[in-house]
Amino acid sequence: MSVVGKELQYRTKGFSDVIDITSDVNSVIAIKNGIVCIAVIGSTASITTIEYEPALVADFKEKLEELAAHDQPTRHGDTWGDDNGFSHLRASLMGPGITLPVNDGRVVLGTWQQIVLVDHDNRPRERKVFVQMVGE
Amino acid sequence: MSVVGKELQYRTKGFSDVIDITSDVNSVIAIKNGIVCIAVIGSTASITTIEYEPALVADFKEKLEELAAHDQPTRHGDTWGDDNGFSHLRASLMGPGITLPVNDGRVVLGTWQQIVLVDHDNRPRERKVFVQMVGE
Amino acid sequence: MSVVGKELQYRTKGFSDVIDITSDVNSVIAIKNGIVCIAVIGSTASITTIEYEPALVADFKEKLEELAAHDQPTRHGDTWGDDNGFSHLRASLMGPGITLPVNDGRVVLGTWQQIVLVDHDNRPRERKVFVQMVGE
Repeated sequence: MSVVGKELQYRTKGFSDVIDITSDVNSVIAIKNGIVCIAVIGSTASITTIEYEPALVADFKEKLEELAAHDQPTRHGDTWGDDNGFSHLRASLMGPGITLPVNDGRVVLGTWQQIVLVDHDNRPRERKVFVQMVGE
Repeated sequence: MSVVGKELQYRTKGFSDVIDITSDVNSVIAIKNGIVCIAVIGSTASITTIEYEPALVADFKEKLEELAAHDQPTRHGDTWGDDNGFSHLRASLMGPGITLPVNDGRVVLGTWQQIVLVDHDNRPRERKVFVQMVGE
Repeated sequence: MSVVGKELQYRTKGFSDVIDITSDVNSVIAIKNGIVCIAVIGSTASITTIEYEPALVADFKEKLEELAAHDQPTRHGDTWGDDNGFSHLRASLMGPGITLPVNDGRVVLGTWQQIVLVDHDNRPRERKVFVQMVGE
């Protein structure tokens, strides 16, 4: 049994930019069987899975806009002047990370299921995704 | 310390069909203390917990319909013709799985809290739920 | 490798009361590297991360009210008379817990990112949060 941690880095565009990180995650998997926790550092981004194809990615961004519009006034924006209240709301609703099984050296996923980083912030960011494995 | 993985299978009806999998999960728990990751394979289903009683299950399905209606046009549906854009949106918002503590051989849950598979797809499916335990 | 479980207790006010539990979680971390699963026991509360400052907390509560209003009639409320259908809906959408990496004895978080318990119930509660660590 061992613990292995890796950090991945991404340049993102914000406004719920959706980035497929599946192959990066699989490339750092260093256990045969166990669990992998994939968490983005920060309070304005999320990790989830999606069928990563452009039409659905556009639908998903539109749905997030519907749930918490980028131009909706927020107390957070009014107080701190950084205008990314919507980014925080989306991130707290979706959560900061997901945990998935690792089986035979690969993350357990469906054929049309990719792991994505979703950056909700209102500007380009450099993001760190922490990939923590526990297993054997 | 060990890793134990089990696969559960379900026949689902789709449209956010909610299936109580608590006793199945508890029946495959093979560690005394640790963590269990319960993940459904595929991009149109989710795992969460709920008080599993018919009135609340109906409320929950209605809420998901409100969040992403089954007859809402999507780019995904228009592009691929499979009309399950709403299923993907619901699944990506809720996430593909949950991780819970295992204590004394059982998943840590409240009295009125059950683990459920929610199949958002727009047709009956055969679903695999991967149950990965890490512990001792 | 070891498993360490701790239980934290909170008095909450309900209606998506948001309580910062970050320092409590860090104070019970008993591994150097691994994974920590933080789960609230019960079907009407959630765990997530947020930038814990009063303006954003008020925005977040308002957003949850928008997603599932506390005075929206539900079949669950009509059937059981406990009027907390909205609490269940919020809890099942957000999920019961999160899992995060532990690195060098601390939970991996951003500077402005705190772990919060969100109690959605419609009355004050005594809540137990189970903190389960697996690592070395």
